[in-house]
Amino acid sequence: MAELEKKRITMKDVAKEAGVSVATISYVLNGKESISEETKERVMVAIKKLNYVPNLAARSLVNQSSGLIGVVIPQTEDSNMLMFNNPFYSEMIGSIEYQARIQGYQILISGTDADEGYIRMAKERSLDGIIIIGMYPDHFYNELKKFNIPIVLVDSYCEDHYFHSVQVNDRYGAYIATKYLIDHGHRSIGLLAGMLKCRGVVEMRYNGYCDALKEYGIPHRSDLIFESKVDYKSGMEMGEQVIKSSRRPTALFATADIMAIGAIKRMTQLGASVPEDISVIGFDDLNIAEYFNPGLTTVRQEIKRKGQEAARIILECIGNPSAGKQEIILPLSIVERESVLSIKK
Amino acid sequence: MAELEKKRITMKDVAKEAGVSVATISYVLNGKESISEETKERVMVAIKKLNYVPNLAARSLVNQSSGLIGVVIPQTEDSNMLMFNNPFYSEMIGSIEYQARIQGYQILISGTDADEGYIRMAKERSLDGIIIIGMYPDHFYNELKKFNIPIVLVDSYCEDHYFHSVQVNDRYGAYIATKYLIDHGHRSIGLLAGMLKCRGVVEMRYNGYCDALKEYGIPHRSDLIFESKVDYKSGMEMGEQVIKSSRRPTALFATADIMAIGAIKRMTQLGASVPEDISVIGFDDLNIAEYFNPGLTTVRQEIKRKGQEAARIILECIGNPSAGKQEIILPLSIVERESVLSIKK
Repeated sequence: MAELEKKRITMKDVAKEAGVSVATISYVLNGKESISEETKERVMVAIKKLNYVPNLAARSLVNQSSGLIGVVIPQTEDSNMLMFNNPFYSEMIGSIEYQARIQGYQILISGTDADEGYIRMAKERSLDGIIIIGMYPDHFYNELKKFNIPIVLVDSYCEDHYFHSVQVNDRYGAYIATKYLIDHGHRSIGLLAGMLKCRGVVEMRYNGYCDALKEYGIPHRSDLIFESKVDYKSGMEMGEQVIKSSRRPTALFATADIMAIGAIKRMTQLGASVPEDISVIGFDDLNIAEYFNPGLTTVRQEIKRKGQEAARIILECIGNPSAGKQEIILPLSIVERESVLSIKK
Repeated sequence: MAELEKKRITMKDVAKEAGVSVATISYVLNGKESISEETKERVMVAIKKLNYVPNLAARSLVNQSSGLIGVVIPQTEDSNMLMFNNPFYSEMIGSIEYQARIQGYQILISGTDADEGYIRMAKERSLDGIIIIGMYPDHFYNELKKFNIPIVLVDSYCEDHYFHSVQVNDRYGAYIATKYLIDHGHRSIGLLAGMLKCRGVVEMRYNGYCDALKEYGIPHRSDLIFESKVDYKSGMEMGEQVIKSSRRPTALFATADIMAIGAIKRMTQLGASVPEDISVIGFDDLNIAEYFNPGLTTVRQEIKRKGQEAARIILECIGNPSAGKQEIILPLSIVERESVLSIKK
């Protein structure tokens, strides 16, 4: 802490140097057209000479733009930390940050209890836009839309017309995953699901699972539905339940890769081989789905592109209130690796 | 976009309501003591009545505090995206964000080319402090310290006295990893290393590897040193090189778990079993070290605590310029899992 802080050069200093008023400096910086070329020139020379950097806080007061995009990430249920234990979120954040940065924006990442705290922060910071990942209570959406800034919901089935959205067809994804198992001869298919919240992603995936069973005339068995949290530990617990169940399924569809990986790990510890004893298909195609041994067969969603699209929409809509609502539904496909085995029909 | 934006309540409105000057409102908000209790009370009533939220941009102009902590994350060499393909960074960010949030701060995450862009941004945003993860060129550190705000370097061997630091003893960690392999009977030990930058983390780990060999009188063989990028794909490439090398080692020490996992995956694909044919120990103890099959034996560093300590230092030093320099060196230990086998001596 040796060096003393240099006094920050202010608009006042620039005004003095250029021999104009502070208001004039502000007009020049904000591109008002009523200023003569000669005055503009004088101000720019003074700015350069003093090495003046406009303070964004000051600029934000003038033209209401903060250059900040809020990104809301779900938090873990137990510790309220960002849900980075599921790499799904960090993979998405990487691409949001990059898109924002190359256009001169910064991102403000936070978890939230969807309470007044976040709403107050968004207001205080004059966020230019918000990307909300996951599903939140209605009152949270209702409060946020009052700000009249662009908001993109990622993976939410909120039906309010105000919001832009980026998502996948979760029901379709679960359908093709379950169908894939059926096509490989499986008839006894367990579901490892996150909590079935109303209108949430997991509920949609549950519906897709049921769709496929129904299409092939396979009865729905409630003893094959395992419901828990979307994390590795819960996956392990569900894996153990599967192995110990009296009518063990021959295949599992996990609604998230992170659960599939936990389940495989635990089942392997308990002596069952994947895919020889039990096949597993996941959903997401996290990086670790590829890393894992055995490589996880899964439903690929383009996680990075989800982030890119969300950022693109925000950036297009900032300062352009007449831009129409955008709804992006990204494609899904099966990535075949080593965790599913064909069995005799 | 239906609803019209409500006019923002300003300090002026509050001043009018309370029958005092704007300056008085500002004094009250910033805790100046010269204001009478009665006036304070009147101002607070007006604030409540109008539901006024102080604009942080305005507050930042007055008391120089932005409530923002910058976090700099290394970017990938090819795409300039945040290095979230190594979960090491996302695990740390989770804890930094949480610590900051519970104390009313937000974090501004960005990658940087360590050029003027970041320095300008830090100045424009009036960041209250910065956490810098990884090693950057000297000129970057020199420019940043001019701001006279607290800066914590995580995993950097920069020797400038200005900065706080949070790190581990990388040389020691590599030493115990290599010693662990030697204690399990291995004498032919390969090193999978990131790029050996001067004064960087990888160089220290290389030194620790050499220390252990030397202590046990094992000759250093340059054909056992594999150097590449710290990511999964490079790990796979190195795994292939190891398998195809003419004098194949019996064990590998990878200076990062993500490389160890890539190497194991590729070696397994090529028909070698871990740990039966070749033992592997990593460094970091990422979550996926536990998830992986086989579970990865590795040097555990407390990644979350690294983030916590960095955030704690920043928060303690904000507004307290006389706080002394803090240097935290966190402990390291071996986590035994399934990737190392004892061999006959």
